[in-house]
Amino acid sequence: MKTTHINVLEEITLNNPIFIEALPGIGHVGKLAADHMIDELGATKFAELYSPFFPPQVFVNEDGTVENMINEFYYLRANGENNRDYIILVGNTQGLSPEGQYELCGIILDFVESYGVKEMYTLGGLATGHAIEKTRVFGAATDIEFIEFLKEAEIEIRSADGGIVGASGLLLGLGKLRSIKGSCLMGETPGYFIDAEAAEAILEKLAILLNIEINTDKLEERAEETRKMISKAQQMEQEMMNKTVGSGEDDLRYIG
Amino acid sequence: MKTTHINVLEEITLNNPIFIEALPGIGHVGKLAADHMIDELGATKFAELYSPFFPPQVFVNEDGTVENMINEFYYLRANGENNRDYIILVGNTQGLSPEGQYELCGIILDFVESYGVKEMYTLGGLATGHAIEKTRVFGAATDIEFIEFLKEAEIEIRSADGGIVGASGLLLGLGKLRSIKGSCLMGETPGYFIDAEAAEAILEKLAILLNIEINTDKLEERAEETRKMISKAQQMEQEMMNKTVGSGEDDLRYIG
Amino acid sequence: MKTTHINVLEEITLNNPIFIEALPGIGHVGKLAADHMIDELGATKFAELYSPFFPPQVFVNEDGTVENMINEFYYLRANGENNRDYIILVGNTQGLSPEGQYELCGIILDFVESYGVKEMYTLGGLATGHAIEKTRVFGAATDIEFIEFLKEAEIEIRSADGGIVGASGLLLGLGKLRSIKGSCLMGETPGYFIDAEAAEAILEKLAILLNIEINTDKLEERAEETRKMISKAQQMEQEMMNKTVGSGEDDLRYIG
Amino acid sequence: MKTTHINVLEEITLNNPIFIEALPGIGHVGKLAADHMIDELGATKFAELYSPFFPPQVFVNEDGTVENMINEFYYLRANGENNRDYIILVGNTQGLSPEGQYELCGIILDFVESYGVKEMYTLGGLATGHAIEKTRVFGAATDIEFIEFLKEAEIEIRSADGGIVGASGLLLGLGKLRSIKGSCLMGETPGYFIDAEAAEAILEKLAILLNIEINTDKLEERAEETRKMISKAQQMEQEMMNKTVGSGEDDLRYIG
Repeated sequence: MKTTHINVLEEITLNNPIFIEALPGIGHVGKLAADHMIDELGATKFAELYSPFFPPQVFVNEDGTVENMINEFYYLRANGENNRDYIILVGNTQGLSPEGQYELCGIILDFVESYGVKEMYTLGGLATGHAIEKTRVFGAATDIEFIEFLKEAEIEIRSADGGIVGASGLLLGLGKLRSIKGSCLMGETPGYFIDAEAAEAILEKLAILLNIEINTDKLEERAEETRKMISKAQQMEQEMMNKTVGSGEDDLRYIG
Repeated sequence: MKTTHINVLEEITLNNPIFIEALPGIGHVGKLAADHMIDELGATKFAELYSPFFPPQVFVNEDGTVENMINEFYYLRANGENNRDYIILVGNTQGLSPEGQYELCGIILDFVESYGVKEMYTLGGLATGHAIEKTRVFGAATDIEFIEFLKEAEIEIRSADGGIVGASGLLLGLGKLRSIKGSCLMGETPGYFIDAEAAEAILEKLAILLNIEINTDKLEERAEETRKMISKAQQMEQEMMNKTVGSGEDDLRYIG
Repeated sequence: MKTTHINVLEEITLNNPIFIEALPGIGHVGKLAADHMIDELGATKFAELYSPFFPPQVFVNEDGTVENMINEFYYLRANGENNRDYIILVGNTQGLSPEGQYELCGIILDFVESYGVKEMYTLGGLATGHAIEKTRVFGAATDIEFIEFLKEAEIEIRSADGGIVGASGLLLGLGKLRSIKGSCLMGETPGYFIDAEAAEAILEKLAILLNIEINTDKLEERAEETRKMISKAQQMEQEMMNKTVGSGEDDLRYIG
Repeated sequence: MKTTHINVLEEITLNNPIFIEALPGIGHVGKLAADHMIDELGATKFAELYSPFFPPQVFVNEDGTVENMINEFYYLRANGENNRDYIILVGNTQGLSPEGQYELCGIILDFVESYGVKEMYTLGGLATGHAIEKTRVFGAATDIEFIEFLKEAEIEIRSADGGIVGASGLLLGLGKLRSIKGSCLMGETPGYFIDAEAAEAILEKLAILLNIEINTDKLEERAEETRKMISKAQQMEQEMMNKTVGSGEDDLRYIG
């Protein structure tokens, strides 16, 4: 495999879709939120992305079968009042090298733009390194109008106290260059465990922003399941990615 | 040398061949097993692979001559009841970078597929970091039918306790995308020494799975020889690869 | 984004322009000096450069909006006696990998050469690792005539006590191969804080060399502002770059 | 600069030339020996190689002028009895990344082959990490006949106690694939200082092998000069290369 490629499983047309990205990162916050959304709202997988920029490995499932490093695109037909469809991107990994991250984010944006995407949300965690009493959700956005929109939903604005590293940041930045508006929502989390509370906090805010309903009753259950299913290797993997994409070792205030 | 290339030494046609990969990794388990198999069953080298993704160095042989970094393909005519031929891949190194691993595994699969390969075994070690009383062999596979087949041979199924890093994992994963079925067999080993017992354990299981006979009497002798022949540099090399392909520093439960 | 590209915002023609580079480095000395110059002398942005060799991230501004990794070209119409125009390159990052640095510097030189550049100054800091009583400015140059010119301005010549790592050095070196004459000016600085004094020292020498006037009254104010605006992430970023482009860990005598 | 390129300064034809490589490495042994040979025997520079795989930096000379990372080809007309010419490769750096080393060595071999090279010597140091009473010269070679030839010159054969990392090893290995015969000569050296004794020991053996005379009277003087001229940065550089091309941290028995 020399190049990144997307395998389209179902030909679809979408209505002014909103793109939601939640690749693995800090506390698996974004991934947990998006996986729940896919399951709860019944999203359908329509494309798979494989890349030589992913880690050179496989994961082993519960039943002993191997699982490739993959990013997966789901679509969701409109059930919100605004009548718009969704594309949700989840997966078990991100690109490893800086150049790989740029290429992958470019390819992902090309792909979702071909379905008419002009708006996106990227979901992640914001590690604090210490226990959290009441999970806050922080936001950053491509433009000041979007920032105002986030404030209306009582999302705290993350001002100049750090960058957003990895796909959640880069998709937003490269999207901005293509006039795709968007926001990165970050749920506060102590750090390296599967954090259902942070995921729930993000989903609550996302439901407000998208004007849809997302039942989060089963989220803790899902978190528990995820904790069991996510192998040691995946956790090792995440640590490696965190190191690779450039985190400080002593400072956890960044996003994968 | 700008690109990976394969130098074919002998034009051959094979009968529904099974592909066996055993590039260097933890405890040289897979390599030792495959080298023994090649010697014991009289396999013939028919192709060599060189790559700019290998480490930029040579090894020095006992007699002072230098040896390039190389992967070598052997074929073995059918001697099992199932009447199928074999392609065995061995070598003194693996790709260093993630992108290199993806490109190399892709090229290797292209090559063996051109001989009709639809089934593969990748051989490796599973490091425990401590002494082992009775060597177990663990397996993972591309699909659930293959898992059942491994269970029949009393191979333990490795469920969700780690990824498989490097060629042994990636060949299996990328093979799965091409509908090549296969399994990774991992012999338990304390870690960084040439482990004849783990290699023997793997060969015993492989003989069952392939329905062939492999005499392992000379294996300890070969291990001793390998210990002498494998230079300090090669051991340094392995450590470097282990670091490069992303192992945790404190956790040895992964496969090279 | 697979390749580095430059987005030209305004088509201009310049009169025998002098190129000034001040990408982020040690103590933000060069960047602070150039940002001040742009503001004080009223330079106009005319082109933006984006690259997959930049870190895969965005910065977050004071207002919560995201900012891409970017290099920016400004032009300044002649106000010195010598009647020559200027191109000033600033930005929030440099290339990460060695290959990336080479490609970016080549592209930058191609671009400024197309406007007729035959002379350049690269601005940076020279970290001492300890407090400084009176900031000295050191210089290196592409040729011995330029060295003499620097000496006339009482710039100390930096002889054989270290390399110049990163864009400030590489642009000079690659420029030399294209017959672009130039000098790297390095303001002594303790190291990792926003150093207005070093920037002022550089601007004083640059004003002499260019025969222009640059009011530095507001420089300390700007430094303070920069200290506030430059997020923790950017500082982390700089440390990462310093590590990546190859500094010694114990020796701070190099330039980013 | 996107690609490695060679700038030919003088069109020449050579008589069955022998290629000698001595890029920087351990103790600057090979470089010191080759620089001495170039000066003592009056070799002429005829080509320069620049590459994006070199470190992204410049060195600063004694007079304050900057010096690009470079590899330089010299030729020397026959003065030995065997009537053969020489190509000598020296420089201030080697490729940084594994892929870069492969590409550079391939390009170098293409280039010298175009002058008819069928035989080569690569010169380096073999670090012991401790003081040496009588400097030994070790050799490795592409084939067993060459090993015998080395033995006749009382060069010790380096058997299986380590690899040869970097250009000195890789040129030999890749040369072997092209039927260029050759040897790597390694002068024992404590390690990280400019070692005139090791260089002298290598030159003595090389003079025997090439059947030429090389006066080494001025070698210590040159070593002293080199010690002064080689900046701190170059030494930092070398350390970085050593780390990059994969040495063990505690073991110095390898060659740059």
